[in-house]
Amino acid sequence: MKDLAINVGLKIKVRRKEIGVSQDKLALLADIDRSYVGRIERGEVNITLEKLYEIAEVLDCDAKDLLP
Amino acid sequence: MKDLAINVGLKIKVRRKEIGVSQDKLALLADIDRSYVGRIERGEVNITLEKLYEIAEVLDCDAKDLLP
Repeated sequence: MKDLAINVGLKIKVRRKEIGVSQDKLALLADIDRSYVGRIERGEVNITLEKLYEIAEVLDCDAKDLLP
Repeated sequence: MKDLAINVGLKIKVRRKEIGVSQDKLALLADIDRSYVGRIERGEVNITLEKLYEIAEVLDCDAKDLLP
């Protein structure tokens, strides 16, 4: 299941860069601590579904597109 | 975001019944407390992605199919 977090984190990072959003901005808009965004993108944390949907909203994509 | 948990909980319940798995069996196979399965299906809790994938594996479906 470690692979899952790494995979999701990578997809979030790719999408974030694709639309030119900084980690800081994502953190602010998704109401996440800035350091936590880094941990999510490195696959170090197991996020909740709610957080996934909040991130997807900020990144203007479908939450399912952030899943493997 | 309360709707999200309710929606996911309902999809889990529908799929579980579709393949004839009891809450007890799902709890056992997904390594979740029995009462927690009930809370998930009623949308009372905000589950993690990891838990969603564990449940999807037990229910023999794609985790994405359990999302709205």
